[in-house]
Formats: sequence, structure tokens, C-alpha cells
Amino acid sequence: MSGRIQDSTDMRTLTVQLGERSYPIYIGQHLLDQPELLTRHVDSRQVMIVTNETVAPLYLDKAKRAFADRQLATVILPDGESYKTIDSAMTVFDELLRLRFSRSAHLVALGGGVMGDLTGFAAASYQRGVPFIQIPTTLLSQVDSSVGGKTAVNHPRGKNMIGAFYQPKCVIADMSTLETLPDRELAAGLAEVIKYGLIRDPAFFDWLEADMDALLARNAEALTYAVEQSCRNKAEVVAADERESGERATLNLGHTFGHAVETGLGYGEVLHGEAIAIGTCQAADLSRRLGWLTDHDVDRIVSLLQRSRLPVTPPPSLDADAFLEHMAVDKKNVEGQLRLILLEKIGRATLPIPVEISNLRQTLETYGRH
Amino acid sequence: MSGRIQDSTDMRTLTVQLGERSYPIYIGQHLLDQPELLTRHVDSRQVMIVTNETVAPLYLDKAKRAFADRQLATVILPDGESYKTIDSAMTVFDELLRLRFSRSAHLVALGGGVMGDLTGFAAASYQRGVPFIQIPTTLLSQVDSSVGGKTAVNHPRGKNMIGAFYQPKCVIADMSTLETLPDRELAAGLAEVIKYGLIRDPAFFDWLEADMDALLARNAEALTYAVEQSCRNKAEVVAADERESGERATLNLGHTFGHAVETGLGYGEVLHGEAIAIGTCQAADLSRRLGWLTDHDVDRIVSLLQRSRLPVTPPPSLDADAFLEHMAVDKKNVEGQLRLILLEKIGRATLPIPVEISNLRQTLETYGRH
Repeated sequence: MSGRIQDSTDMRTLTVQLGERSYPIYIGQHLLDQPELLTRHVDSRQVMIVTNETVAPLYLDKAKRAFADRQLATVILPDGESYKTIDSAMTVFDELLRLRFSRSAHLVALGGGVMGDLTGFAAASYQRGVPFIQIPTTLLSQVDSSVGGKTAVNHPRGKNMIGAFYQPKCVIADMSTLETLPDRELAAGLAEVIKYGLIRDPAFFDWLEADMDALLARNAEALTYAVEQSCRNKAEVVAADERESGERATLNLGHTFGHAVETGLGYGEVLHGEAIAIGTCQAADLSRRLGWLTDHDVDRIVSLLQRSRLPVTPPPSLDADAFLEHMAVDKKNVEGQLRLILLEKIGRATLPIPVEISNLRQTLETYGRH
Repeated sequence: MSGRIQDSTDMRTLTVQLGERSYPIYIGQHLLDQPELLTRHVDSRQVMIVTNETVAPLYLDKAKRAFADRQLATVILPDGESYKTIDSAMTVFDELLRLRFSRSAHLVALGGGVMGDLTGFAAASYQRGVPFIQIPTTLLSQVDSSVGGKTAVNHPRGKNMIGAFYQPKCVIADMSTLETLPDRELAAGLAEVIKYGLIRDPAFFDWLEADMDALLARNAEALTYAVEQSCRNKAEVVAADERESGERATLNLGHTFGHAVETGLGYGEVLHGEAIAIGTCQAADLSRRLGWLTDHDVDRIVSLLQRSRLPVTPPPSLDADAFLEHMAVDKKNVEGQLRLILLEKIGRATLPIPVEISNLRQTLETYGRH
């Protein structure tokens, strides 16, 4: 294939509307086989692809082919959330500087959310900012972290504590990469897909209830629709509130609980989406205690997550005190006051609201504790 | 003093015009004795002052007094450019997280350029950005690094290679802090003051030639005028070109040479302003070779820097090859092509222009090499 790109008729293009920082999200099959799509937003001779040891054997060659006529460098990091660190970012900086890559160089994040967040932060910080593109290869990163410009690395005391708001030049979500995604990671992605239904799109939640079996069977049409609807919801939220002064915080439904699970168990023990599934159930339970959700609503939420093969109860090793300890370090908190995203109903989330510790403690001590 | 602040009649206020990110620069004597001035832009209960072991005994108590009613933390780092590192930034993150400081916390940079750049980068990155204010206590940081939002830490392979564009909420330049500034650091600041005359303000250059003795004698009125004119020039440049796509690059006159001196000798061996003085002379010499400056122009530049008690010749230990090696890593370079800021005349700089290596090598091999 060469010359002018023939967009597949199946490819969908969404746009994240952010003025001069607007960018497209391409969603479709076999996009990595379209070199012109990869290079369309990379206006530089110097290109560095950052990926990991799991993704590299699968997709690095395809990505490299697209940039064969450039000065191309690759950094291959170990796989896993435990490598989303300042040290990994330094590995990227070391290589960029060893090769004397300039401020016009472009970075390419190839992989899941860890790769995207880390590479995005490296791009935001290298020489005070170089352009980058996102090629998410997991469902989770396609529907969540690759869109919206949140970049970060973790700190031992908390997830995503060191980072930047920094938008990519484009996002290329090649649905074909989901063919190689382990079942467990597919499920983890569904946790965030379901979130969009819960916080702002009740019709999408209904669709997920009806079509979950097709998603689990990796039906291409169903997966593409799910990614498209998720990205559309996320793009609308980000366009309205790029730096999270309002609605964007609702994307964190279940995340304060979930981050506590991740920090409490140690990065790598549990997948982000799994932790979010548990946290979403806890947030639903607390919303029920506050009189917003019915028992039936909570059942629908828990059972859809369960059908997605996700854990829905907190790990026994983390008691309520451990949760409270870890939840105290959260970006939504204001000067020590814990704030959470909760559900007013299925399809509508609250902004971050202060919660009574006594109510929260009841959820932490009773929900899923048999 | 309490209640509504009575601005000293001598205090000057400049504004860096950047739309919703606009902020004031306060310039005057005894500003640290006006708590209301320090707290005016700090709208948070959580405040962390970042300073170093040299500045802390002199001014930390005054700064702390202003924030006595807040949850106040301090980080005191070792002094020196060699501590402007990711590790020092991590020290700040560690302490912020240990204290569970939230996204609404404010950082205060108290000290010279290293403190401002490092604290600014920490503020830009902590939880993807918290507000900060600058209290520069050296002439160099008052006239240069505290204004304009360039934040960064160094990498062993190059200065300021990891950073962000991130504007402070205000800059408080207390001229009284210059009383404790060592002569050598005062001179280092004058290198950047002279730069503003050279790149865009010939009348200011004339004034500096006429009033250098008053500056060296630390005449308060002369110093205040020099800081005000420098900040006014810098604020105009930054307002026109915040992210250095054009005119802002002219602020880097002498800096590509100068960074090579700093990197080549090792951070800490030479002050930034001293390296810039050497680099400015080299840039002037190269500008003469290109037919833009006269011999007399170069003499004026070299002798004004010399009168400021600054070095004006390259260190013998760094030969032309060493310069070229270090100059190859510079943010203004585009894909391996070295670009420099030069002078068309005293009072007008070029944008970054590609230079012939043969011309550059002549300057590196002959200027100041006896």
C-alpha cells in the first residue's frame, strides 16, 4: 500500500475537540497495516517507539515498518504496572539524549495504558515537551488512558502522582490487536467500558447488558462499537473539562476505591480494570446507602461486571482501615477531606462529593465481606 | 503589619500577559517583610516551601512567618546546580505524599534559579500540576529564570532536558535579598541583565555601560531599575511567545555555548551566568565573523561583561571538539542541525539560525585562545 491512504470504510474517526490541541481517534481493524495512517501525524525525521517486552514481539515490526524512512529508535521496557516509574521515564530520557534527539522528535506509545501514560509523560517532559502519538493495544487503553491527555508515572505512595496533562497528536486504536489480548485483560478493559454507561450513558449500559456475550466472544463489530461509544463519551467529557475542574472527575467512578486496591496489594498483583470493577461495586453500594441507587440497580451493576469475568468483592487481605489509609492519598481529595464519585442513578454520576467516614466505613466493612 | 497590604510606594508591579495564566511580578525592597504580599496568591491551607541550605538560614523564617496559619512544610535541599536533578524532585514528591498534600496545595520556590526551576517542575508534575509562587533571592533568578514559566531539572547529558512550561501564580523579587548575595553571584546575574540590552534594548545596554559602577556597588535604585527593565523585557518576550516557537529563543543568546561550558566542566564548577558571559562573547565573535557586528561592537560587549567581573574566555580544558560535542545536544537544534542565536547588532538578536560548522569552529578555536 502506498500513496494516498484509503481509509477502510470500517474505520471510524472521532475528534477530541480541544481547540488547537484537537486530535483524531482512529478506530478500526488492521490499522497497523496502514503505514500512512501511522505516519500522518508524525512530522519529524526522529521517531522513538516506546513499548514493552510483551507487545514488542507482536506489533513492533509493523510499527517500525511505517517509520522505516526515519531515524528510528526503540525502547523496550519490561511489562507491567510496576515499571510505570520515574526510573522507566529516565530510561527513555537517557536514550533520547544518547541519540541526541531534538525537540522536534516524536514519541510513539505502543502498548497498553502503562506504555501510554509513561510515554506521554516522557513526551510532556523531554525538552519541555515533544509531540507523541498513542497506539493502544489493549481494550483498557483504547477506551480510557489513550484518550484525554492524562499522562503520569506512579510513586510508591500512590498511582499517577507524577504526571502532566499533555495531549497526543492522534490515537490509533487497531481493534485487530485485541486478538492477542489475554482474556483477563479483555475483562479489565470492560470495567472501564461499563463505567461510561454508568456515569453518563444509560442506553449504552443497556446495550452492554444485551451484548456482553458478543463482547466476550470478541465479535469485531461489537468490540468496535463498544470502543467507539466509550471514546465518544470520553472525548465529550474531556472536551468539556480538559483539566478536570468539573465533569471530568466523573471518569474516576470506582477509582478511589480501586487505587486503594492497587496500592494496597502492590502494583502488578491486580489489573487496573479489576481494581476498578471492585471499586465500582463499592461505589455502587455506598450510593445505595445514601438512597440513590436501589438494591436492583446495584444487582445490575455487580452482575454485569461479574458477567465480564471481573472480580466484584474487595480482597480479604485489605480491611477497611487499609482502604481508608490508601484512599487518603487521592488527587480528588481537598486538604484531607475525602471526596468520591458516586452514582445518582445508572447513567448519572455525581461530581466529587465529601462523604461521611461512617457511611464509607460501613461499605468497606460489609460490602463483599462474607 | 496586618490587614490590608500597603504596597510600598517603591514597589513596582509588572504583569506577564498570558491570558488566564497572567501573573504579577513584584519588585521592591523588604517584600519578604510583607506577609500579605506572600500570601496574596496562595489560596490553600497546604503550603510547601522548597529552599536550600544556603538560603534557609537567611530567609526561610521570614517566609514561614507569612504562612504560619497554614499547614506548612519545608524541604531544604543541598545548594548547587548539581542538585537540580530528578532525585531532588523525587525528594519533594516524597515529602508531599508523605504529608498527603492534595492537588490544591501550593509550592513556594525560595532561592535562586535552581530552586525555582526544580520547584516549578515539581509543581508542574505533582498530581499533574499544583500552583506555585516564585521568591527569587539571586539577581540571576530575579531577572531570568523566575519569570516565564520554564521549569526543568538537568540530565547528566544536558541542562534542563527534563521539564515543563508551567507558569507561577506570582513572582516576588525582594531586592533586599541581594544584600547577602556573594559578589560572584551578583556578577553572574549581570550576564543575563546585559543580555536583555544586547538582544532587544539598545538603550538599556547604553544605560548599563553608564551605570555599571552603581550596580557593582549594589546601589538599590540602580539594581531595582536593572531588575525592572530586565523583567519588563522578559515579560514582553514571553507574552509574545510563551512556548518558544519564535522570539523567545532570542533569550538564549550565548546559552548554547554556555551550556557546553557548564556540561563540559561539570555542573557546579562554573556559575550559569559565568558560562553565559563566555558564551555571549563567543556568539559576538561569531556574529562579527558573519559581518554583522563590528570589532568595536565586540569590544563593547566583552568589556562590559569584563567590567561586571565575569569571565570572557573559554576554559582551556574545553577545546573546540569538546564544545561541538556538547553543543550537539541543545533544544534549539533541529534533527542534528546546530542552530544558534546571534547578534545582528547591539540591541537586536537573530532567531535560531543554522551555522556553518567551519565558521563556528573558527570562533571556538580562536576566540579567547591565546
